[in-house]
Amino acid sequence: MPHIAVTPTPLQSEDAILEHIALHFPNTGKDVLLGRGDDCAVLKSESPLCVSTDLFMEDVHFRRSYFSPWDIGWKALAVNLSDLAACGARPSGFTAGISLPSDADMELVDGLCEGMAHLAAQAQVPLVGGDLSRAERLHLCITVFGQTDTPLLRNTALPDDAVFLIGETGLARTGLQLLEKRGRSACSEFPVPCAAHLHPVPRLAEGMILASLAARWKAEKTSAARIGLMDLSDGLARDLPRLLGKRGASLSLPDPHPSIVQLMRERGKADPEKAARLQCLLGGEDYALIGTCPKYLVEKIHESIPETVFLGSVTDNGDILVDNCPLCGGFDHFG
Amino acid sequence: MPHIAVTPTPLQSEDAILEHIALHFPNTGKDVLLGRGDDCAVLKSESPLCVSTDLFMEDVHFRRSYFSPWDIGWKALAVNLSDLAACGARPSGFTAGISLPSDADMELVDGLCEGMAHLAAQAQVPLVGGDLSRAERLHLCITVFGQTDTPLLRNTALPDDAVFLIGETGLARTGLQLLEKRGRSACSEFPVPCAAHLHPVPRLAEGMILASLAARWKAEKTSAARIGLMDLSDGLARDLPRLLGKRGASLSLPDPHPSIVQLMRERGKADPEKAARLQCLLGGEDYALIGTCPKYLVEKIHESIPETVFLGSVTDNGDILVDNCPLCGGFDHFG
Repeated sequence: MPHIAVTPTPLQSEDAILEHIALHFPNTGKDVLLGRGDDCAVLKSESPLCVSTDLFMEDVHFRRSYFSPWDIGWKALAVNLSDLAACGARPSGFTAGISLPSDADMELVDGLCEGMAHLAAQAQVPLVGGDLSRAERLHLCITVFGQTDTPLLRNTALPDDAVFLIGETGLARTGLQLLEKRGRSACSEFPVPCAAHLHPVPRLAEGMILASLAARWKAEKTSAARIGLMDLSDGLARDLPRLLGKRGASLSLPDPHPSIVQLMRERGKADPEKAARLQCLLGGEDYALIGTCPKYLVEKIHESIPETVFLGSVTDNGDILVDNCPLCGGFDHFG
Repeated sequence: MPHIAVTPTPLQSEDAILEHIALHFPNTGKDVLLGRGDDCAVLKSESPLCVSTDLFMEDVHFRRSYFSPWDIGWKALAVNLSDLAACGARPSGFTAGISLPSDADMELVDGLCEGMAHLAAQAQVPLVGGDLSRAERLHLCITVFGQTDTPLLRNTALPDDAVFLIGETGLARTGLQLLEKRGRSACSEFPVPCAAHLHPVPRLAEGMILASLAARWKAEKTSAARIGLMDLSDGLARDLPRLLGKRGASLSLPDPHPSIVQLMRERGKADPEKAARLQCLLGGEDYALIGTCPKYLVEKIHESIPETVFLGSVTDNGDILVDNCPLCGGFDHFG
């Protein structure tokens, strides 16, 4: 079969690009009173509003060498929705500030929109506004809005509370390392870690279940409303202190995913299991949910979200021990 | 007096920069249930929520050669708040995605924050979240949230409605041209146009007055609620069709600001007055408010906002005539 060269479609005027983007996103939604196209969008809001903004920047948060445009669009929205999940909020809408580099073509714009629109449809969250500009690299700035009557916060734990985890840790970090070293071809050999890095899934349903459980318990007995929650974006080692505030904890991590142990073995680590456990602790971009709750709620949460793993207990001092190991590490763009 | 060299303070860790930024912005506000520091901020919302996102990018929307860091911080927020003004909304909060280039120092961060915080305090709008990253140039992405029970929209005019303008046009475009040609020194010779470009003032009070008038009339006689409103960001020539939709209008512009005529004279234009009128029509970044209303509301609006100028009437066809001149022009990042 002859090789067919695909001619890239150059970018058109700003208005033409905006019209093109609009084709990917419905301009309606459950909470949308007025969609895109005016000075502001207008959302119905009957509950307190949760808002969060995250940047997703080329060569800081992703590389185009191994992120397809579709992946970029998906993940830019996913990491933001994960913040709503971490509060237990139902998504109402999002805005996107998109900056396109000079080598961008309409195929890039289309791919980006397709990935983003795919997740937006799954999460039932409409695009309600945004802006478009030129930049040196591809930059996205997304703001999400969600609603809940019972926002779940960090730093609400009391001594003897349980610490729980919903989702895997360490996989996304492993995927990142593989993709950085081997490029996109890593996806065929290590599909699970690569997918964890390229296509994280925001745990919106789980967050909303926890918020509704908290609301129900709050209605039944006011003192039992205490569920602490956050999403893991910077890794357990860095995020656990944020969840626990001045409290400590004594925790055991679940067994690492087999693909992490396999990679550590390939790397010739003397103790691949131990190296994999460290990987899970350092993590980063896991977008799992981690939380705290009074012990007597453990069973209720497990019933509603069977995937939940209980890691251990909150303690009265500030020391956090994970598998008897003190914490370290994290990621800093400016460090 | 000896010249004292100021040593720039290099950027510290991401957490240290964030802590530094936080010092400039109170973490409370009328609608703030939970401020910065958790996965999401939580805002009280008792009315429909207006949201808008705008990018403010170095070398696209501003140059650091003649924008001080203070100016950049002010204007980035101002152009966003102007979108709330254009809906008649009361600001509730804003988020900021800030990308710093490698030559940024803490003085730049401080200046940026001071300008932004100054306007935020004036507008009583708290910073409720954001994100920080590295980029090639200084980029800001701001999202604003506001509330109103009567959002004012574009494209609501009926034939014979009045078209009104609150604020100057053409000054910011004149300022831009002067600053581009002469740099910051233009400010001393042409302070008014330069200030219009560097420090636009969002007309929040005027927008809220119009929304409350619309609400009052709506309560009194439902048919009279029709006030159309938008802010002028791309210039009259490009924005008038957006305000009028498929309607036309026959309009006369007010006399141009004397500084615009003065500049046209300096430029050796054969008819400086006429050149200045064209400048006012093309405009861009005016952030004045332009609107439409039934004729019998003209006096009421003028009473409440004496600065209001009435430009003419909406017509039944699609032709927009300004001083008997058909429309043209506008600005496009990708054109």
